[in-house]
Amino acid sequence: MVKVALLGPSGTYTHQAAEKYFDNLETQFCSTIREVFESEAEKKFVPIENSLGGGVTDTIDLLEERDEKITGEVILGIQHALISDEKDISDIEKVKSHPQALAQCKEIINEYGWETEEANSTADAVENLGSGEAALASEIAAELNGKNILRKSVQDRDVNVTRFLVLNGEPEAEEKTSLILKPGEDRPGLLHSMLSCFSGHEINLSHIQSRPTKEKLGEYFFYVEAETANGRLQKALKCLETYGEVQNLGSYSSAEMPE
Amino acid sequence: MVKVALLGPSGTYTHQAAEKYFDNLETQFCSTIREVFESEAEKKFVPIENSLGGGVTDTIDLLEERDEKITGEVILGIQHALISDEKDISDIEKVKSHPQALAQCKEIINEYGWETEEANSTADAVENLGSGEAALASEIAAELNGKNILRKSVQDRDVNVTRFLVLNGEPEAEEKTSLILKPGEDRPGLLHSMLSCFSGHEINLSHIQSRPTKEKLGEYFFYVEAETANGRLQKALKCLETYGEVQNLGSYSSAEMPE
Repeated sequence: MVKVALLGPSGTYTHQAAEKYFDNLETQFCSTIREVFESEAEKKFVPIENSLGGGVTDTIDLLEERDEKITGEVILGIQHALISDEKDISDIEKVKSHPQALAQCKEIINEYGWETEEANSTADAVENLGSGEAALASEIAAELNGKNILRKSVQDRDVNVTRFLVLNGEPEAEEKTSLILKPGEDRPGLLHSMLSCFSGHEINLSHIQSRPTKEKLGEYFFYVEAETANGRLQKALKCLETYGEVQNLGSYSSAEMPE
Repeated sequence: MVKVALLGPSGTYTHQAAEKYFDNLETQFCSTIREVFESEAEKKFVPIENSLGGGVTDTIDLLEERDEKITGEVILGIQHALISDEKDISDIEKVKSHPQALAQCKEIINEYGWETEEANSTADAVENLGSGEAALASEIAAELNGKNILRKSVQDRDVNVTRFLVLNGEPEAEEKTSLILKPGEDRPGLLHSMLSCFSGHEINLSHIQSRPTKEKLGEYFFYVEAETANGRLQKALKCLETYGEVQNLGSYSSAEMPE
């Protein structure tokens, strides 16, 4: 068994994404991202980015603050299943879920004219189903609770994808590298100059996010993900160090986008 | 009177910042940033950045979505006052406030050994004071509720400053300009190339924040604030338009940092 700290409760999309990555997962559920980082479980699993919400700022700030090695990433398409004790979709009168999930499944709710009820989490909704009721939640939540999946993937067409990072896991092929860049001074064009270290060595950036240093309004550090690009990234790092401080958070394989 | 939509309730730091900017403010309090943007009040007042929390993503996404003109900015140092019906600090046994404010005033709480109690907002705490109790809140909340300010600025030394934007207000001297940049394609070095339009025309950027386009994971637009720099910004805009779409959100004066 591999003990991994992650956001709970059991049956959420984070749980489903972790099951996708780890064989023999032993879950250690936490209630905040800080608790995940501070857990005594060595391996951790945290969300880094969602296609609708953007970067997960708690994760980025804690990556900067603590010395954990990123060793992998997982991308999960958020697909809500319609879950019930009933066996036939025509017996459903009410659907329960987290308000975000209800908002993401407006089309099917309108099509069938179901009543809706908000729950604290998608997993909670599955645990509290009465007769004539269904929940919108992950497929793993149906399995864990022994419920029926009446229909898979019932969300509207928004692209809802979340990317997760694995901390302190097994080494992988090094395709991309996460870095924290802290400019050494505040002067016109410094970000442009730092980025020239990547473009000068023909290295693609797949992600860049600014975060406040918490020391002064308008003072930032940058979280970036760059192609490892064989030896060229090492040259770019030397170039970056002439402009400020560079924290190397680790290298890992690029996850494939789900269909 | 000037009718302005802003986040409520009355007596919060947003309210205090708006009073600092507008003469004869007529407040229209809303409960979310989206409601502020959708309010029928023409003038709006929204937070854009906090020195501890970073960019306010709801505001950035709504600036991109809606056609409102930024005409000013206000910077407010978040300074908690100790507010009570009591007249003497030695009669205080318990302090109430929003958990964030309690966390920001640990030193004085420990020094006096006060009990603490969490409230829904700093303004709520002031409205529900019993004997021997004090609240940590804005000075304006004390005024609005006819309470005593026992001590000003009791927070620990963290730099806690929030910047706000004024929408559709009176024109000001044009010192800085807010832009949304949408790269026209996804290729290595495109952000670097776009930033070269600013550095090439010697224009300083005071803020840059990436946000997801919500169409595809890893596809971003950028909210930037640039020096207006006389006619040079117009040249930079022409340069930027060769790389993608540029939305000009308006020009305004730079606010001074509070002491």
